[in-house]
Amino acid sequence: MPNPVIERFPENPILTPADVPPSRPGMVVEMVLNPGAFRFQGRTGLLLRVAERPEVDDNHVSALMYDPSSEGGLRVMTVRKDAPGLKHGDPRGFEYKGRYYLTTMSHLRLAWSDDTTHFTVEPHPAMQAANDHEAYGIEDCRVEYVDTKYWLAYALSSENGVGVGMASTDDWKTYERHGIIFSPHNKDAAFFPEKIGGYYWAFHRPSGIGLGGNNIWLARSPDMLHWGAHRRLVAARPGRWDGERIGAGAAPIKTPRGWLSIYHGADATGRYCLGALLLDLNDPARVLARSETPLLEPEAGCERRGFYGNCVFTNGHVLDGDTVTLYYGASDSVVCGARASINALLASL
Amino acid sequence: MPNPVIERFPENPILTPADVPPSRPGMVVEMVLNPGAFRFQGRTGLLLRVAERPEVDDNHVSALMYDPSSEGGLRVMTVRKDAPGLKHGDPRGFEYKGRYYLTTMSHLRLAWSDDTTHFTVEPHPAMQAANDHEAYGIEDCRVEYVDTKYWLAYALSSENGVGVGMASTDDWKTYERHGIIFSPHNKDAAFFPEKIGGYYWAFHRPSGIGLGGNNIWLARSPDMLHWGAHRRLVAARPGRWDGERIGAGAAPIKTPRGWLSIYHGADATGRYCLGALLLDLNDPARVLARSETPLLEPEAGCERRGFYGNCVFTNGHVLDGDTVTLYYGASDSVVCGARASINALLASL
Repeated sequence: MPNPVIERFPENPILTPADVPPSRPGMVVEMVLNPGAFRFQGRTGLLLRVAERPEVDDNHVSALMYDPSSEGGLRVMTVRKDAPGLKHGDPRGFEYKGRYYLTTMSHLRLAWSDDTTHFTVEPHPAMQAANDHEAYGIEDCRVEYVDTKYWLAYALSSENGVGVGMASTDDWKTYERHGIIFSPHNKDAAFFPEKIGGYYWAFHRPSGIGLGGNNIWLARSPDMLHWGAHRRLVAARPGRWDGERIGAGAAPIKTPRGWLSIYHGADATGRYCLGALLLDLNDPARVLARSETPLLEPEAGCERRGFYGNCVFTNGHVLDGDTVTLYYGASDSVVCGARASINALLASL
Repeated sequence: MPNPVIERFPENPILTPADVPPSRPGMVVEMVLNPGAFRFQGRTGLLLRVAERPEVDDNHVSALMYDPSSEGGLRVMTVRKDAPGLKHGDPRGFEYKGRYYLTTMSHLRLAWSDDTTHFTVEPHPAMQAANDHEAYGIEDCRVEYVDTKYWLAYALSSENGVGVGMASTDDWKTYERHGIIFSPHNKDAAFFPEKIGGYYWAFHRPSGIGLGGNNIWLARSPDMLHWGAHRRLVAARPGRWDGERIGAGAAPIKTPRGWLSIYHGADATGRYCLGALLLDLNDPARVLARSETPLLEPEAGCERRGFYGNCVFTNGHVLDGDTVTLYYGASDSVVCGARASINALLASL
């Protein structure tokens, strides 16, 4: 495939649902996608989004949700397809008695590699829904090491809406939750790796109602836990590859020319591509450059066909000198990898 | 009117558009509504929302917006009603060439009273749109004195969405802006008057897309400027007077039984009423009581008919012993007042 800047792994996809053991009996792993990525003790870690559904026959639809009163904290709901009050058809969710349910529920699962390409998936979830605001699951986690530990920003959803939850860890065994840092409707949050001008910084993606669209915003914090000075950083460009909705990928990469940020953009047909932004090193609200054309487009088979076809989406990468190894979800179904030279990415801008 | 707890001013409405000088020639004051309220140097101050529109004939629609390149920072846009690409009819806004415009633009205006009932409106805006995020105006400001100054939380809107901006003042002549504290879609933010457990606290009202609704949330801050630990506090109660959307009024009132908060609720027909919440003094996330029936309903003529009829909405009050003097917008058109005994409000819960 013709792409001079970002080179896909020949092994793609590197993880599929068949590589992921279900979290418990009776569950089917439907998708594995959108991993956060990090280095820990010499290995590369992925924090995968694993989407499961309860196993049901063709005559039923089902949903899974957090319920502290059920065994294991999870409740399975099954509805006959001919039940009154059921509206179904969209593979992502259904409406039953006036309430909306998701067909799959996502948790976060670790996978480890010694070579950045071949990963072994842990048998149990690292983090899963654990409170009412996470009742429909947690997903698309960005991971960044800032100061003394890894900070995790993930999208959470429940009947209270979709927002960004935060957790931290220093051992990848125990996780401390810090609550919701960006209230609904919000997702695609990613932290800068270091302070700028005395503050921590993050990208996030609030969504407007009527006014506002789906754009990348910037916020700052004195302590990583409380955020303010929100402002829109860049907007979707109607009519173009990133015309409908955009969102940040993982943490921006510090380069001599500025903060290099890889982001996703969807066009009016819902096709997701990746591009890049360059931000001023000392003033990240200042945009220096932006990809005119996508750096990665859905071209390979698994990028074009799946649960949500024509989609490449990244929220994790690791760095090694001039090389960024990028992990991305393809068609909301499997995990792929790619490599790029940071200098070549900069030269493309 | 039969209402044992909240007693309306016999003088209502206390302010109408006729009492408010336009901010500049060529403007018509369309509505005066939803004031923040406070005490300053022995007087009662209201920070009114004043909605203006450019004066046009019946063959045109018009919009007003912030534009730093125009004289006075405001741009008037006029479109013939038969222009191609215009969709109009809703009094609140119109669509032109794929973009949505508001017919009125709001600014914040001071009014002063020596007796809490008779107010004199200042001739010029106290605060008006001053940056891109405020391009379509600022409105519905809550005012609270915390520590050493007055903190102002107002809704701002632009093509970037509707969010909550913050400013502060100690003299009601100069205002310092602190940026956006709650990103879109958000409004109805109000600060607690003092720290609880080492943090400042605020109500806010994020809105979900698909999931989430329009409910009252709680957030905390170490410094009033950066906010986190967001959580849903109370939800709309489908089928009831507050079944569709709810939002906090002004700051909660500290009482021996808990934090007393007056809030608005709209039902499925869009009728806005006022009710109350009681929250634990030491843990404001703990709801102790909530009004089963409204404490104030649109009953008077000006509360039933206007720009948006059947609406009472409060975001300002002042306290004097056991008396809370409540200011509220009626039908999004005029300002009214009412008084209640705090003990009677508590007894109603």
